[in-house]
Amino acid sequence: MDGEARLASSNGPLKTPPTVGVGLIGYAFMGRAHSHAFKAIQYMMWPPPAVADLVSICGRNQDAVQEARSRYGYKRWTTSWQELVDDPEVQVVDNSTPNNLHLEPCLAAAAAGKDIICEKPLGRDADESRAMLEAVERAGVTHMCAFNYRFIPALQLARRLIQDGRLGQIYHFRASYQQSGRVDPNSPMTWRFRRDTAGFGALGDLGSHSVDQARWLIGEIGSVSGLTKTFIPDRPVEAGSDRREPVTVDDAALALLEFQDGPIGTLEVTRCATGRKNYHLIEVNGSLGSLHFNCERLNELRFFSREDPPEIQGFHDVLVTERAHPYGTVWWPPGHILGWEHTFMHEMHHFLTAVAGGGSVEPLGATFRDGYRNSVVLDGLAESSRTGRKVDLTYAS
Amino acid sequence: MDGEARLASSNGPLKTPPTVGVGLIGYAFMGRAHSHAFKAIQYMMWPPPAVADLVSICGRNQDAVQEARSRYGYKRWTTSWQELVDDPEVQVVDNSTPNNLHLEPCLAAAAAGKDIICEKPLGRDADESRAMLEAVERAGVTHMCAFNYRFIPALQLARRLIQDGRLGQIYHFRASYQQSGRVDPNSPMTWRFRRDTAGFGALGDLGSHSVDQARWLIGEIGSVSGLTKTFIPDRPVEAGSDRREPVTVDDAALALLEFQDGPIGTLEVTRCATGRKNYHLIEVNGSLGSLHFNCERLNELRFFSREDPPEIQGFHDVLVTERAHPYGTVWWPPGHILGWEHTFMHEMHHFLTAVAGGGSVEPLGATFRDGYRNSVVLDGLAESSRTGRKVDLTYAS
Amino acid sequence: MDGEARLASSNGPLKTPPTVGVGLIGYAFMGRAHSHAFKAIQYMMWPPPAVADLVSICGRNQDAVQEARSRYGYKRWTTSWQELVDDPEVQVVDNSTPNNLHLEPCLAAAAAGKDIICEKPLGRDADESRAMLEAVERAGVTHMCAFNYRFIPALQLARRLIQDGRLGQIYHFRASYQQSGRVDPNSPMTWRFRRDTAGFGALGDLGSHSVDQARWLIGEIGSVSGLTKTFIPDRPVEAGSDRREPVTVDDAALALLEFQDGPIGTLEVTRCATGRKNYHLIEVNGSLGSLHFNCERLNELRFFSREDPPEIQGFHDVLVTERAHPYGTVWWPPGHILGWEHTFMHEMHHFLTAVAGGGSVEPLGATFRDGYRNSVVLDGLAESSRTGRKVDLTYAS
Amino acid sequence: MDGEARLASSNGPLKTPPTVGVGLIGYAFMGRAHSHAFKAIQYMMWPPPAVADLVSICGRNQDAVQEARSRYGYKRWTTSWQELVDDPEVQVVDNSTPNNLHLEPCLAAAAAGKDIICEKPLGRDADESRAMLEAVERAGVTHMCAFNYRFIPALQLARRLIQDGRLGQIYHFRASYQQSGRVDPNSPMTWRFRRDTAGFGALGDLGSHSVDQARWLIGEIGSVSGLTKTFIPDRPVEAGSDRREPVTVDDAALALLEFQDGPIGTLEVTRCATGRKNYHLIEVNGSLGSLHFNCERLNELRFFSREDPPEIQGFHDVLVTERAHPYGTVWWPPGHILGWEHTFMHEMHHFLTAVAGGGSVEPLGATFRDGYRNSVVLDGLAESSRTGRKVDLTYAS
Repeated sequence: MDGEARLASSNGPLKTPPTVGVGLIGYAFMGRAHSHAFKAIQYMMWPPPAVADLVSICGRNQDAVQEARSRYGYKRWTTSWQELVDDPEVQVVDNSTPNNLHLEPCLAAAAAGKDIICEKPLGRDADESRAMLEAVERAGVTHMCAFNYRFIPALQLARRLIQDGRLGQIYHFRASYQQSGRVDPNSPMTWRFRRDTAGFGALGDLGSHSVDQARWLIGEIGSVSGLTKTFIPDRPVEAGSDRREPVTVDDAALALLEFQDGPIGTLEVTRCATGRKNYHLIEVNGSLGSLHFNCERLNELRFFSREDPPEIQGFHDVLVTERAHPYGTVWWPPGHILGWEHTFMHEMHHFLTAVAGGGSVEPLGATFRDGYRNSVVLDGLAESSRTGRKVDLTYAS
Repeated sequence: MDGEARLASSNGPLKTPPTVGVGLIGYAFMGRAHSHAFKAIQYMMWPPPAVADLVSICGRNQDAVQEARSRYGYKRWTTSWQELVDDPEVQVVDNSTPNNLHLEPCLAAAAAGKDIICEKPLGRDADESRAMLEAVERAGVTHMCAFNYRFIPALQLARRLIQDGRLGQIYHFRASYQQSGRVDPNSPMTWRFRRDTAGFGALGDLGSHSVDQARWLIGEIGSVSGLTKTFIPDRPVEAGSDRREPVTVDDAALALLEFQDGPIGTLEVTRCATGRKNYHLIEVNGSLGSLHFNCERLNELRFFSREDPPEIQGFHDVLVTERAHPYGTVWWPPGHILGWEHTFMHEMHHFLTAVAGGGSVEPLGATFRDGYRNSVVLDGLAESSRTGRKVDLTYAS
Repeated sequence: MDGEARLASSNGPLKTPPTVGVGLIGYAFMGRAHSHAFKAIQYMMWPPPAVADLVSICGRNQDAVQEARSRYGYKRWTTSWQELVDDPEVQVVDNSTPNNLHLEPCLAAAAAGKDIICEKPLGRDADESRAMLEAVERAGVTHMCAFNYRFIPALQLARRLIQDGRLGQIYHFRASYQQSGRVDPNSPMTWRFRRDTAGFGALGDLGSHSVDQARWLIGEIGSVSGLTKTFIPDRPVEAGSDRREPVTVDDAALALLEFQDGPIGTLEVTRCATGRKNYHLIEVNGSLGSLHFNCERLNELRFFSREDPPEIQGFHDVLVTERAHPYGTVWWPPGHILGWEHTFMHEMHHFLTAVAGGGSVEPLGATFRDGYRNSVVLDGLAESSRTGRKVDLTYAS
Repeated sequence: MDGEARLASSNGPLKTPPTVGVGLIGYAFMGRAHSHAFKAIQYMMWPPPAVADLVSICGRNQDAVQEARSRYGYKRWTTSWQELVDDPEVQVVDNSTPNNLHLEPCLAAAAAGKDIICEKPLGRDADESRAMLEAVERAGVTHMCAFNYRFIPALQLARRLIQDGRLGQIYHFRASYQQSGRVDPNSPMTWRFRRDTAGFGALGDLGSHSVDQARWLIGEIGSVSGLTKTFIPDRPVEAGSDRREPVTVDDAALALLEFQDGPIGTLEVTRCATGRKNYHLIEVNGSLGSLHFNCERLNELRFFSREDPPEIQGFHDVLVTERAHPYGTVWWPPGHILGWEHTFMHEMHHFLTAVAGGGSVEPLGATFRDGYRNSVVLDGLAESSRTGRKVDLTYAS
């Protein structure tokens, strides 16, 4: 059952939805996207699976978190994530912090029996991710790793076409996630350029998305050969400063993949693709058909079928906004496109549905198991880059 | 001053924004888009120019309007637009009704001294539109005709490039607004297919947008030669019915335009362009450069400049999501695209700014004068189609 | 029977093809394209329908025509077209001259019983074209007006899809032929900017192509409303000169079309579309499907079908280089694209086939009747622009 | 000096060009392309650098080679390549045979002092290629490995932009050559699927092109990690047969590349990319700009520059048909596109220029040294796939 089906099933006779208390850790980029989702699905994806009660918001900067509270309408604020986790009104902990703050709050939230949604990548490495997976499984809570690109209608359609056999036997997967927002060597340091806070660079930030799509669309990855590279070795400690700090993560990562079931793939992520903004190319080739997707045109999916009559074979440029498409009955008339932020509304809708029903977010949503296996691939790629050898991957869970 | 500049100016030191009581007439397609805008700009375009207090919502179906009230969070509901207009808490009347319900509520709202935003086209013909223009001018209220496509960042960028002289002398304007949602002859009747409720068919619904872009980007239109056509002469009275009702409006309209300042243009609107969903092509050619826009890819603007070095001349495929772009500092990082509904957030932000400041929505927003002159062009096109003669346009106001 | 079929039929058992003596009037742009076609089809479209014996080439500049003779391998040269027409070895007269030199050599060639291929537009107006049509019909010779775009494989495929009913009832035709090679006001005069030599400007040069596609793909045109415009009123008499000469033809022409069978259309041609090089957009919308073509990507045809399953409906981006496509067995493997000049090889192959068989070039090729009816439309458009009235077209033949 | 410059320099005062006797071994796909080039450049790239005298054509099938002789106009034919090599009228040996027939005829031709152009890949492995390189160097003849994609105007423009520093420091190279003509498992065996005749599969046929572009655009490759795969393990021995023969080469090959000067890259070639016909994607990202090219639209180059004003930054869609472009003065007006076969005309023009002048084809053309180094990369990739280890490349010459 995919996103559309779940949503349709929630469109039954109007009954009062349950209320779910939400505590959000982090109020910046992801905090804004998540808060918007919690608020807007209440009336845009009507009737909502649950009413998100915005109980508490947590951040380290007191002034900023106060303003965020007032801006998004949370009942209270705190600078202590432990306080938020312990808040009895908080049923769901939403961890939207930098990567080095994923582990502890999630372990504490699991211990407190809270349902959890955590931003990606789950941990900074497979060990952290595995600890988090074990914690939520032990606690029996609902858990989700926020791979929001699973909630792009075009990619849900892609998955459906693959699973329905429209591509035949899968031969090739191809992901290339290219950005350039930080291509200027004088763009300053942030936590994203430090190993201790971020774990990996482009590999963790962008590559975790690509790996998730690989696993979700094609299947488990068996081996990886990787190459990472840091093109810009240091950056100003802050904007305009003459002092520079070493960059301790990768700017780019490349990989060759062998999937357990036979397909092969390439994966490429980079922060140095001048001119590409949020270009996440995903392509799949099979014996009967092919798919092409690019996140800068996220309403579109291109599909080629050898089952079309020969003279009109060609990539179909599908504008994924029809009633027949995932979420096609939820939004606007055909051709009235969705934005990037809609992925979060779909994601939170899906998560709240699982929370309200006490179940899992699988298979449409990513669990902490997906988060863990994702980390295994990233670690393997980095190891391969260090050793110059192909790494066979093993998953402990 | 364009959208970005206005917004920037509102991003000064945080002060308590004024509260504006909103009354919405109509709760369907446009009502949903407007309600979402009123709600989401409170935290997504922070700090808001005014707090929209959702006072009252009006519709003809009591059950439906009650559910809409509950869904969007209006304080009260009514089935009488007069009651809504008279509501002392309502400062702004938002008229999102079918075209035949634009005139009277707007006249009443003006008479009551309310600020008004009315969906497009303003009236069903130039006479209606002129009456509405005169009413709001007499009343001295803030007025806006909701041509939301003026609030697409790419089109604001287009206008800026034209006004900055980057295209040189303008030669050609080209608008082609193509849809196909109703291309099936068994798709049933609605108010949009009846002359008495809609005024025009595709000409009013789509053509008013195209004419607005023509006037806003290029300038006033001097003459029009037109051709209208109804391809599907009747439709089922309701879905699945054998009884059919005549369609009394156009399915398509074509026109040749002469602008007062010299450029010439073509305009085409149709509900019968199979495969096109919300394809609004806008192109401008000038002596130094050209522009291309298509609403199905509304985050993109294509720009050609003869001032580029010869060997690299080519249409620039600009993804209009940078900080340098209109609304570029408001939303997400570059390449994280906006959806169609964001146009309403920009529009309502602009309108609330004008209301809060007691001023006009010009020149970025469309006033009722724009609505009136738009009607003159549509009437002229229809007249030309009837007579087979080019019509020279005159504007009474 | 289309190009592919004819070609296939010529691919029977190898027999010695007949020899056809060719005389070419004009050695510049079109003369080069035609000469190349005559030469290359001998081995590239093997076996050829006839061996073109390059007998004679004619031009006004003696040095230039001598060099052209040597370059292309004609047996002899002359500066007198009458001499060429009278040459007993010349069976086919190929008239590749400026428009004001179409009439007399064609009349003479017909009188001499020669088969004729003449560049487009046929005459400078309908009267000239009609005289030429009557002459070739009287003489009973094979005649062709060189509308080479009929020989683009993608457009032959378009025509096949329309004729096979894949688009259902046709609603809309749209042609927009945009160039900019002469958009610089200091680009000097040529015969193309003078009424006496060219007849029309963009209207004759580009518009005749668009009208031919309209007629060939959709059917006969019943009425036209037109608008012509000259943006650049004068040009240097020669490159670098200060003296300027008035431009006496149009730079651009727009039209609204009503086809005799019901469809409506727009037509636009311009030499002032900065950034467009040889952009000939052709679109057709029908009740079941739509087509999109652009001459700058002439190997591609985009086709939308409502008969596809709903979730994968989208324009098919067909790369028209498959064996299933027109001329698909003649050239290279799929995806190895053809160039603009291949249209001439297909055209001359078709013409030589008709000449060798003593028959007509219809319906794939354009006859002088097509050339005449084309002129009627161009004249009607110009008349409508002068009078401001729609013109109902009548065809004397 | 690139193609355009060389050509321009040959456009001096008309003098009688030398005659060069050509002997062609192989008459199929490549033989046709080469023959056409020899013939058509005589008048299409006027004046030619040399007159190609088509002396002799060689093939194994007597009937077929006789027909080819007659079709293309060679003076004589033979089934013995040794006889062709020994022919005193043959100055240039053009080896267009399958890969296993490259070595011996080239060694013999070099020994006979003939100038040589040989199809790619040069040898079936680096040892063969090195032997051929040593032979031509010892003999002092002009030698060229026929990497025709160096003669695509858009790629010559790409190289010029890189060399002029318009992309700044190069970070990423990306090549993905995708075809699908043989994706059907019942498409029969040919020499291309056998190790002894082809050496490699997609890796040799397509990958040699990608590697050549990598080296020509970016520089020498330092290391390679590779993965090869055969998806379709056997094929019918001939069309329609039930008997199947094992495929002994790769269907696809993937690689990660480290260039000697710092950039990194990915390389992918496949015969199993359903829907892709001759899709050769080449992308380069640098600190200042980026390039995108796709061989299915070979007239286009997309170029992004951070040096554009921020609000109009975007990939320029350059239609490489202007006078300012490579070969832009040779062909047709802007926008009148070239086909795939034009690459051979440019290539042969370049080769004949070198032959006529007794010089080298460098740096625009590929020499046998380029052919050899290409083979080293292909061998390294295959070795890496076998061992699972990154291979550091060393070039003996």
